[in-house]
Amino acid sequence: MTATDSLSEAAPGPASAAVPQPEPGATPLPAQPRTTSSRRAAAELVGTAALVAVVVGSGIQATQLSQDVGVQLLANSIATVCGLGVLIALLGPVSGAHFNPVVTLAEWFTARRGGSGVTARELLFYIPAQIVGAIGGAVLANAMFAEPVVQWSTHDRSAGHLLLGEVVATAGLVLLIFGLARTGRLHFAPVAVASYIGAAYWFTSSTSFANPAVTIGRAFSDTFAGIAPGSVAGFIAMQVVGAVVGLGLVVLVFGRPGRGQEADG
Amino acid sequence: MTATDSLSEAAPGPASAAVPQPEPGATPLPAQPRTTSSRRAAAELVGTAALVAVVVGSGIQATQLSQDVGVQLLANSIATVCGLGVLIALLGPVSGAHFNPVVTLAEWFTARRGGSGVTARELLFYIPAQIVGAIGGAVLANAMFAEPVVQWSTHDRSAGHLLLGEVVATAGLVLLIFGLARTGRLHFAPVAVASYIGAAYWFTSSTSFANPAVTIGRAFSDTFAGIAPGSVAGFIAMQVVGAVVGLGLVVLVFGRPGRGQEADG
Amino acid sequence: MTATDSLSEAAPGPASAAVPQPEPGATPLPAQPRTTSSRRAAAELVGTAALVAVVVGSGIQATQLSQDVGVQLLANSIATVCGLGVLIALLGPVSGAHFNPVVTLAEWFTARRGGSGVTARELLFYIPAQIVGAIGGAVLANAMFAEPVVQWSTHDRSAGHLLLGEVVATAGLVLLIFGLARTGRLHFAPVAVASYIGAAYWFTSSTSFANPAVTIGRAFSDTFAGIAPGSVAGFIAMQVVGAVVGLGLVVLVFGRPGRGQEADG
Amino acid sequence: MTATDSLSEAAPGPASAAVPQPEPGATPLPAQPRTTSSRRAAAELVGTAALVAVVVGSGIQATQLSQDVGVQLLANSIATVCGLGVLIALLGPVSGAHFNPVVTLAEWFTARRGGSGVTARELLFYIPAQIVGAIGGAVLANAMFAEPVVQWSTHDRSAGHLLLGEVVATAGLVLLIFGLARTGRLHFAPVAVASYIGAAYWFTSSTSFANPAVTIGRAFSDTFAGIAPGSVAGFIAMQVVGAVVGLGLVVLVFGRPGRGQEADG
Repeated sequence: MTATDSLSEAAPGPASAAVPQPEPGATPLPAQPRTTSSRRAAAELVGTAALVAVVVGSGIQATQLSQDVGVQLLANSIATVCGLGVLIALLGPVSGAHFNPVVTLAEWFTARRGGSGVTARELLFYIPAQIVGAIGGAVLANAMFAEPVVQWSTHDRSAGHLLLGEVVATAGLVLLIFGLARTGRLHFAPVAVASYIGAAYWFTSSTSFANPAVTIGRAFSDTFAGIAPGSVAGFIAMQVVGAVVGLGLVVLVFGRPGRGQEADG
Repeated sequence: MTATDSLSEAAPGPASAAVPQPEPGATPLPAQPRTTSSRRAAAELVGTAALVAVVVGSGIQATQLSQDVGVQLLANSIATVCGLGVLIALLGPVSGAHFNPVVTLAEWFTARRGGSGVTARELLFYIPAQIVGAIGGAVLANAMFAEPVVQWSTHDRSAGHLLLGEVVATAGLVLLIFGLARTGRLHFAPVAVASYIGAAYWFTSSTSFANPAVTIGRAFSDTFAGIAPGSVAGFIAMQVVGAVVGLGLVVLVFGRPGRGQEADG
Repeated sequence: MTATDSLSEAAPGPASAAVPQPEPGATPLPAQPRTTSSRRAAAELVGTAALVAVVVGSGIQATQLSQDVGVQLLANSIATVCGLGVLIALLGPVSGAHFNPVVTLAEWFTARRGGSGVTARELLFYIPAQIVGAIGGAVLANAMFAEPVVQWSTHDRSAGHLLLGEVVATAGLVLLIFGLARTGRLHFAPVAVASYIGAAYWFTSSTSFANPAVTIGRAFSDTFAGIAPGSVAGFIAMQVVGAVVGLGLVVLVFGRPGRGQEADG
Repeated sequence: MTATDSLSEAAPGPASAAVPQPEPGATPLPAQPRTTSSRRAAAELVGTAALVAVVVGSGIQATQLSQDVGVQLLANSIATVCGLGVLIALLGPVSGAHFNPVVTLAEWFTARRGGSGVTARELLFYIPAQIVGAIGGAVLANAMFAEPVVQWSTHDRSAGHLLLGEVVATAGLVLLIFGLARTGRLHFAPVAVASYIGAAYWFTSSTSFANPAVTIGRAFSDTFAGIAPGSVAGFIAMQVVGAVVGLGLVVLVFGRPGRGQEADG
């Protein structure tokens, strides 16, 4: 809400775009060897834990303080925008700040034939770190608010229109991240991704989970932001569908990579 | 609400201001040939659809969650600020991110005698793409919230003071976009245009439609953000008047282009 | 709330700091002759009118939509933050975007013995333009909301603790603007000044008018943001006191200009 | 919420990172001798006073205007985000804008063996300036709202889950500041730290004091943001624990300084 930003160091020039480093998510460090795997895994775990703690914790606080569900979701969404933006800015240079298995998978998919992005081997620690972190974040939020530390949500989210909401939410997220990547502007990710989620909390009927790890984590808290375990698989399936739709939209709007014009690698 | 931004690549220096490329709206890609027409049309269609989905969808969500109309408009306006800013940032490099026929027309008008901007031929696909997108966005929002997918708004918005509100809202929007263009700072558009709309939701009596395509789209949802079909023509007429007033204000404050001082191309 | 900003052009390097141009307020155009007086006066008039229209108009809208005064002030303050930031960004390069007689006077005062800033002659059109604009903005807001276009506020604001609030609010504003100027960072003014006002709406008991022209304009609307004519003189007197306190704080924290260290011109 | 930022001057390149100057907190002035101690102490005192005045004052205003505690905390948190961001941006170049003894101590601790940061001697005026400022800010807020200028809070905050909240809040703050420092991006601090606090108001059960000086100051106002004197010691102890946890997380995620890779000094 205030700002004094510049990235003369952090925003890589065209040259650094060719260096293999963590993308998408945020500003990679300029021209450096990759961070060690253990530190990248730690960044994904800590970041996803913090994200879920923000989502679940602010939901609990909001329901304790207000009876107006609109005010509750305002608080929940504003806290998430603030927290997510900070996490991407802070951890982007270490791991790319995915915090989200579909983003990690989409990046691996688009990078298969060369280019920057996670490798198949890296999938094996990114995704578990995200899931473990997400559960840990829910447990931490429960503990901070004196709730039983492990609990199962009873919030059913299986209605068809909510599933459509998840497709839309995830498609938009993937279009945003990979569209920024295609135009060499991933350094906008902290603000852009956080703002997108702020909008998507409201304009999608599902309040935009858009993240399988976060969805799993949110099953562990029977509070405002929870999701019943029985609704988790449906949400995750729709998130995968949304990611595919999103990658299709990237091609529609930004063209295929490597065919000139926008290619940036 | 958080930020780590820099545009050392994306913000063109003075040199690139002379390259014919999509303006206004957002950061054009530096020194590139124009994107193909089909991709630019896709960007306008997808962007306007997403914008209307955000406006209509967040309005539905807000009215479902709160009884306080002030809280509803807070949610609706904050979601719109977040969503619009992201869309301009994402799609500006492709199409200029107009999403708005009066902006497209005003750009064509100011660029007639040379300079960057859409051509008469391009009007023929920009404006239809915006209108089709806007209707699609309303239909998508209806579907996400389990409303009948096509419906007509019954929200009458024909009072005289609302029409004055639309003139003011559109004049301000045009003054902002073309004033930024005249001072070589269109790279501020994502934040500046989004923030402007955030203010205009509240300070104009009409809640600032300021966009003929969005106005048409909003007629297709009988929800918080809707407008009765019978009120559409009046709103659009006032938006055109507002655009003319806005261009007049640009001359008043920034002078005529090409007469030295502020001219930037 | 979203952002893609850079100012490689607009943010002058140290060299341009010595060029006489509009300050403070916002980014001056690099190395240019001053804009004509009539355009600068137009910018101050249009900008102050828009600012008061935002403050008064959003106050009316908020009171029409919510019964909760906290929600009303949230809407009023968020709309003002958005609107003021945009106005400073847009008009800063033309006139410095003061919109405020105490800022104009303080700039003249600090620039008397050389350095950039308005001259005594320029005071004669800056301040009247601000006052006329402020009244026009209140009238426009009244008209947009179908209120009688000219009316006198009946909102008494003469209690002693409100006067202390105005001293604090104005001192903080002057400390901010001239502190940024002293450290060569006036290009932050759009975000920083807007954010400051957003905080000051809430943390000062007077809701931070901090501006004699806006105070006069707000006397012309008997609505949420109004001030009874009988309270105007007291507020303006405290604003002048606050400006003097603010300039004192600048010396305390940033030292005297021209004695080495932070001097930037 | 609006933005026109760039820091081509203010954001130091890698070279300037080696110059001993105020960190963390915000953008140091490039390549300058340290500001005098008295001006740095004044900046910490004025900044901490303003921060507490914002926190306490906005809390009083919010409780006077709304009955909905959720709306009260929304106002309180938004005002704090705006105010804190501005203060870091304004005063960072003078003192580093710590306003927080645990940040000052953590910086001294990490800088003991060389590198930039406060010295042991400087601790002796930083911390007292912060505490005196914090108390002064609470007194000023009380006076602005016509409360008795000195009063003791009766708001008990000693429950165990609140103490856990303080550990989490402070750990996150320290991880953020020192993580940005380790990756050479302290120029993000104004936005990032303010956004973090905005999230932490909501996601921690304690509403994130995370600052011993502010905790002491808030004991001096028996209003929304107050804390009973009997709860102060517990909060401060947990803040120290949180700072240690935060420094541990920095090592976990960013590695040890001076062992290659991320080292930036």
